[in-house]
Amino acid sequence: MGLKGSCIVAQSGGPTAVINASACGVVQEAMKHGEIEGVYGAINGVLGILNEEIFDFREESPDDIEGLKYTPAAALGSCRYKLKSLEDSREDYARIMEVFKAHNIRYFFYIGGNDSMDTADKITRLSKEMDYEMRVMGIPKTVDNDLAFTDHCPGYGSIAKYNATAVMEAGRDTDAIYTTDTCTIFEAMGRNAGWIAAATALARREEGDAPHLIYMPEAAFSIEQFVKDCKEVLSKFGRIFIVAGEGLKDASSEYITAATGEFARDSFGHVQLGGVADILKQIIEKEVKVKARWNKLGTCQREAMHFASKTDRDEAYLCGQMAVKHAVEEDVTGKMVSLVRESDEPYRCTTGLVGLAQVANAEKPVPREWINESGNFVTEKFIRYATPLIQGEVEVPIENGLPRYIRLKRKPIPKKSPLR
Amino acid sequence: MGLKGSCIVAQSGGPTAVINASACGVVQEAMKHGEIEGVYGAINGVLGILNEEIFDFREESPDDIEGLKYTPAAALGSCRYKLKSLEDSREDYARIMEVFKAHNIRYFFYIGGNDSMDTADKITRLSKEMDYEMRVMGIPKTVDNDLAFTDHCPGYGSIAKYNATAVMEAGRDTDAIYTTDTCTIFEAMGRNAGWIAAATALARREEGDAPHLIYMPEAAFSIEQFVKDCKEVLSKFGRIFIVAGEGLKDASSEYITAATGEFARDSFGHVQLGGVADILKQIIEKEVKVKARWNKLGTCQREAMHFASKTDRDEAYLCGQMAVKHAVEEDVTGKMVSLVRESDEPYRCTTGLVGLAQVANAEKPVPREWINESGNFVTEKFIRYATPLIQGEVEVPIENGLPRYIRLKRKPIPKKSPLR
Repeated sequence: MGLKGSCIVAQSGGPTAVINASACGVVQEAMKHGEIEGVYGAINGVLGILNEEIFDFREESPDDIEGLKYTPAAALGSCRYKLKSLEDSREDYARIMEVFKAHNIRYFFYIGGNDSMDTADKITRLSKEMDYEMRVMGIPKTVDNDLAFTDHCPGYGSIAKYNATAVMEAGRDTDAIYTTDTCTIFEAMGRNAGWIAAATALARREEGDAPHLIYMPEAAFSIEQFVKDCKEVLSKFGRIFIVAGEGLKDASSEYITAATGEFARDSFGHVQLGGVADILKQIIEKEVKVKARWNKLGTCQREAMHFASKTDRDEAYLCGQMAVKHAVEEDVTGKMVSLVRESDEPYRCTTGLVGLAQVANAEKPVPREWINESGNFVTEKFIRYATPLIQGEVEVPIENGLPRYIRLKRKPIPKKSPLR
Repeated sequence: MGLKGSCIVAQSGGPTAVINASACGVVQEAMKHGEIEGVYGAINGVLGILNEEIFDFREESPDDIEGLKYTPAAALGSCRYKLKSLEDSREDYARIMEVFKAHNIRYFFYIGGNDSMDTADKITRLSKEMDYEMRVMGIPKTVDNDLAFTDHCPGYGSIAKYNATAVMEAGRDTDAIYTTDTCTIFEAMGRNAGWIAAATALARREEGDAPHLIYMPEAAFSIEQFVKDCKEVLSKFGRIFIVAGEGLKDASSEYITAATGEFARDSFGHVQLGGVADILKQIIEKEVKVKARWNKLGTCQREAMHFASKTDRDEAYLCGQMAVKHAVEEDVTGKMVSLVRESDEPYRCTTGLVGLAQVANAEKPVPREWINESGNFVTEKFIRYATPLIQGEVEVPIENGLPRYIRLKRKPIPKKSPLR
């Protein structure tokens, strides 16, 4: 018999195509357990808890809850509100516990990346200190795929599949029109890790297919080498298709966009990137002397449920579901559900558990041996890793020619602990 | 009994998701007619004719020819080579006729936009002057949808469907994370016409859905009005999703990007645009004081066969097919196949014929009455026009998680009229 009480699920950070599938896994599983009295959602992540803006999933239609499986972007609302250490954000943490107590919330399921796992870890510790019995579980989510202690992250397979498709298609465009537009640059997301850029390698089936060159933050970027690479590709294929991670750095670990003065920081202190493609265009037009253009899918790439990976979506659901099972049936707390690969071919993947603090304090770059020596493409090891993650398509209902995504009602429940 | 001889098909200008469906229509129809002896393709548009780089469709596999129906971007190769007036490009036109004669090419099917129709018109006139009997047919193609004398253009329905989907998805992203990233700008293609930007209106099903504001080149852009619009949307919905055509102009018809000095011209003398989204971002951050980010799908938007419109694809095929039928069965020449809408609901569309010279010298902007008075969204008339064009999805074969597009072999046939 598990701990009796209500549960709350929250989504945090940048959304993904499958972040709602994880929420769906939590909600549908939680509703099966008699111990769980109320199944709540926090509106806009941790802000919803702090402001006591909470809604009741029993007020949502089962069809809409099921629709979370094919609806992209955080349907509960997300935020980038940063909680610091227990000491520095004491008031916020105290407030969270106050709201939990007011609603007898005994289960907290937090879907997010490193920062969210850090927050969840601190809530776990605080609840223990306060002798308030609860279960806190993390559910991994990031298109960046840079969480450690998990084979990969829900959200990654879908951005990988979509971006590889977009590169394949834009590559055909370059092939068709290279007599004038010789070079295309595709800017991929990925602040510190090159996972997203790397995945576009899957688009290449034959020599000459796009992408010809992939640059990732893990390999120091040199303008000299870049110009050399471009000239080589140009003389071989008559055209150049380049994928560049947004966070490219030079040998002294400086972002190559630094020169443009486009720096700004978000509320987590992360550098906001942009402009890599434009810099590369300038270099190419000046040094390689061919016309270059660039594409930057921006937030479209992380929400492309219309061509998402079914494998990714199903694993996202599984992570949510397993978080509930472990918490209710085994009294697990302070852990994140991880994905554990058992084999590549046939692909088999199960879930595991890892300490929240461990995940919070680590980052997983693309291993250097998965990038070729010249630092301009991935190796076969990466292809073997990424290929299973993009398999299968999610069936999205179509209405009048466009996807029919659901919207939750998210009607806030009455406040029991209003802020003074 | 039609004119005996061979035919050649060529693709020109910016590719689309369905430009190959038109080529497929030409080739599959041509192969049914005994009068047509050889079915050839020009490699890289008119350049392939000038350089006598021609391939034989009978050397391609029927599966690959069929695969043109779901393969985006000009599979024959395209170019932006500009032929001027008969006087100014005399040598080029003479060369084209020389190559036609060498291969007994009596049918020329040219898939393209205004400029291509102009070239096709001149070839028609020249062949008459030279007493070389042939049939010249234009097949419309442009994502820009700005050809006159046709209800719409093949290529448009697919970019409309895809961009509306991308806006719907990126809109969900903005909805989820508006507590920090309050404004998203989506830059749509469209040099002189706002058709592509306008189509994203289809993404809005309910009030509050993205896009909130759409700016098209047809309505003069005013920074003052823009800031006012943004502030209104912000106070109403707490977030802003803007679609901007790349060719926005101010009241004096100057491109608003002119200030940035990013001007360049392509070989047709067209201004190369880019940077509208970034300018709007700067205005918003300074005047509305919220954080803005932007997405620019670039060439990805026009090649997105993975979520193309079946209606568009089928009409593209039909245009190719009808061009052949008219030329062979009715001795039509000097005409472009047009799309003629018979009704909106149920949608019925047939084909017609229009003089090449007529099409060549006209452009069709979005009618002002299809744009609202404030110039920041479309009216119901536009929605009625565009909705049928995005219906249905093209089934694309998937291999290992990604689309399996075909590649033609394009093995050049021996030259009969080599350049000295």
